[in-house]
Amino acid sequence: MVMPQSDDYPALCDALLDTIGRIAARHWCPATGGNFSARIDDQLRLITRSGRDKTRLSRADLMLCDARGKALNPADKPSDETALHARLYQLDSRIGAVLHTHSSTATVLSRLSHGSSLSIHGFEMQKAIHGQTSHLDALDVPIFDNTQDIDALAERVAERWPADATVVPALLVRGHGLYAWGRDLNEAYRHVEGLEFLFECVWQERLATRDLS
Amino acid sequence: MVMPQSDDYPALCDALLDTIGRIAARHWCPATGGNFSARIDDQLRLITRSGRDKTRLSRADLMLCDARGKALNPADKPSDETALHARLYQLDSRIGAVLHTHSSTATVLSRLSHGSSLSIHGFEMQKAIHGQTSHLDALDVPIFDNTQDIDALAERVAERWPADATVVPALLVRGHGLYAWGRDLNEAYRHVEGLEFLFECVWQERLATRDLS
Amino acid sequence: MVMPQSDDYPALCDALLDTIGRIAARHWCPATGGNFSARIDDQLRLITRSGRDKTRLSRADLMLCDARGKALNPADKPSDETALHARLYQLDSRIGAVLHTHSSTATVLSRLSHGSSLSIHGFEMQKAIHGQTSHLDALDVPIFDNTQDIDALAERVAERWPADATVVPALLVRGHGLYAWGRDLNEAYRHVEGLEFLFECVWQERLATRDLS
Amino acid sequence: MVMPQSDDYPALCDALLDTIGRIAARHWCPATGGNFSARIDDQLRLITRSGRDKTRLSRADLMLCDARGKALNPADKPSDETALHARLYQLDSRIGAVLHTHSSTATVLSRLSHGSSLSIHGFEMQKAIHGQTSHLDALDVPIFDNTQDIDALAERVAERWPADATVVPALLVRGHGLYAWGRDLNEAYRHVEGLEFLFECVWQERLATRDLS
Repeated sequence: MVMPQSDDYPALCDALLDTIGRIAARHWCPATGGNFSARIDDQLRLITRSGRDKTRLSRADLMLCDARGKALNPADKPSDETALHARLYQLDSRIGAVLHTHSSTATVLSRLSHGSSLSIHGFEMQKAIHGQTSHLDALDVPIFDNTQDIDALAERVAERWPADATVVPALLVRGHGLYAWGRDLNEAYRHVEGLEFLFECVWQERLATRDLS
Repeated sequence: MVMPQSDDYPALCDALLDTIGRIAARHWCPATGGNFSARIDDQLRLITRSGRDKTRLSRADLMLCDARGKALNPADKPSDETALHARLYQLDSRIGAVLHTHSSTATVLSRLSHGSSLSIHGFEMQKAIHGQTSHLDALDVPIFDNTQDIDALAERVAERWPADATVVPALLVRGHGLYAWGRDLNEAYRHVEGLEFLFECVWQERLATRDLS
Repeated sequence: MVMPQSDDYPALCDALLDTIGRIAARHWCPATGGNFSARIDDQLRLITRSGRDKTRLSRADLMLCDARGKALNPADKPSDETALHARLYQLDSRIGAVLHTHSSTATVLSRLSHGSSLSIHGFEMQKAIHGQTSHLDALDVPIFDNTQDIDALAERVAERWPADATVVPALLVRGHGLYAWGRDLNEAYRHVEGLEFLFECVWQERLATRDLS
Repeated sequence: MVMPQSDDYPALCDALLDTIGRIAARHWCPATGGNFSARIDDQLRLITRSGRDKTRLSRADLMLCDARGKALNPADKPSDETALHARLYQLDSRIGAVLHTHSSTATVLSRLSHGSSLSIHGFEMQKAIHGQTSHLDALDVPIFDNTQDIDALAERVAERWPADATVVPALLVRGHGLYAWGRDLNEAYRHVEGLEFLFECVWQERLATRDLS
């Protein structure tokens, strides 16, 4: 098995495990759900193995993929959704970490929102998302229909990627969950936490006002 | 008292206690509620004693029953619902663990759903349930009316058991709670966690859309 | 200061602190709210001091009162609601512990329920409450209007106390919170946990069905 | 860098960190949100640095400002909202701590409430707020429209400050969050916890009754 040469490899493993642990403690990756990765260098990605309980991971539950999402060690089985992680790293070389989570509120909002994005505005918490500078900004989180064909999903994400790279660092898969990313694990985690807060606000407001648009 | 010969007996006790501890931490077996078991071998079942606080169990709070749910040691008092556990192990020899939990959402959904099952579809999380391969599958969780006559309840479960064994590994008792099982404790726990997530989604959607069917 | 002679006194202090700790961990006594007591013997009650943060108690935050709720040490300030605790111990000599908690759901349900009790039926969890043997039983939790005059509240509780002592071991004070008691701390705690579960179920059902009666 | 002479400085740092830790554990300052301060003396304020994860603070994440909110060490970057903290300490010399939190319920209630305050009455928990002595008191929490111009917000707060100083020790910024203060950290924390409980009650009642006024 090819191992990364970087001295930072053990530290990156531990940082990824720490981030997953925080997400698992919020119950945002139940029932072995969710998958999580970090960019090691131009060629290598560190990613969770398929089907592991995310509350109880160790370094042995992480594995290496190449830039196309192929396991470096053919015996390893990465998450089914590795292809989407790989595509995101390819679409923007500044992305350092990709986190895929499942909360009931994100899942339900993505199903109640029939359009191609969830529009959020008027909340101070938007400023937790890279690129947002005011509650008056518009934060439109793209929504993609769910599919079991991850390559096709990755293709649709690429097709919709803005040429000017002013992309919101997150997307929802309808009835499935949230993908959020960042330049590093801390930023990606901040995006997850900020977006989950915003989803909860949107959910509470829709429930109160019965505005299900 | 007859003791199982298996060297794995202490390990199975600890694994069962660990699983119960995770469920208790989610507040899914409050007020001494819930009961939990594992198959030791063809003849023996390990099950929680009646009326114990599930957040504070030790090995002494577990006991042995035979395949019909009768305490091996006549002085032991198993859970009132042992007969249903026993029947489930009898209905499918592949079942290795049975977990019975109480969440308010499962309880309320089973009461709001007037039919004989709760139908779930369109959610990626369905794939956490054995036998489901896509969000497009139908996941129909059977609902049984509650009764204090557990033998009668076990009989009704047996009558409804599908001949082809393609059973959803869970059932709801109306106004009472969830039974979920699996080939081992980890799978049974994954089913509890996945179903509770799905129940929460269904609850949130019904609340938003006022669809109480 | 008079000290109880019983060897069990330190153990009872620790048991009361443990019970309060469990309740505080559920956020059922926020903002220094709630008060908690145990019967030591015919003459003495152990009770929380006024205004302490219930997540951070030690033995020094407990004090002794006589059977009428008067501090044994005149320098000690018991909870403002000690008179109601004292009256409950007087009304039934079998009561060993009284727990007064605050959850938003209990508070809101007591305000939405305009009658003199909250009626609960059809839930298996009712069996967690002493005296209930089936989900078909009726569990009517008395509701009393709130007042800052605790002696008057205690008097109203006494007036409504059933002659046959078949009392539900709990009451709600409207817009204020829950009192639950039991023969010992464990039973009283089971009543709190079981009732909070039932309140959550009732709340979710009322929200879904818009039945605010 | 100027350091306070007080022997209590390390203790105050630790007390502020402890209070923030409690708030972070409730998820009331997600995604690096929130800012927190304490008065050291007439001249000095201790405040959180900008953009730090509030679940993982150490003394190094705190810094000193003068009474106008200016960093004592020009290299330090205090929270963007330091100007409002500074103004509150100036408006009432008895204020010892200011806590700014984000909960979804406070955020949503402040948006659903179109007037200039959120009116709360009829709840025993009001007594957790300094100055309230009965559930019959009126607790009107002022609401200010959000802005990215913190100096302007601080000015509006000052304009509305009552001459007789009988101010409710809290305010909401619409779509943004809660500011609560007290004579010391413990009182300020009690105000946060009591107000969040009350907001949850108000939210649940509005949802049940569809009263969105």
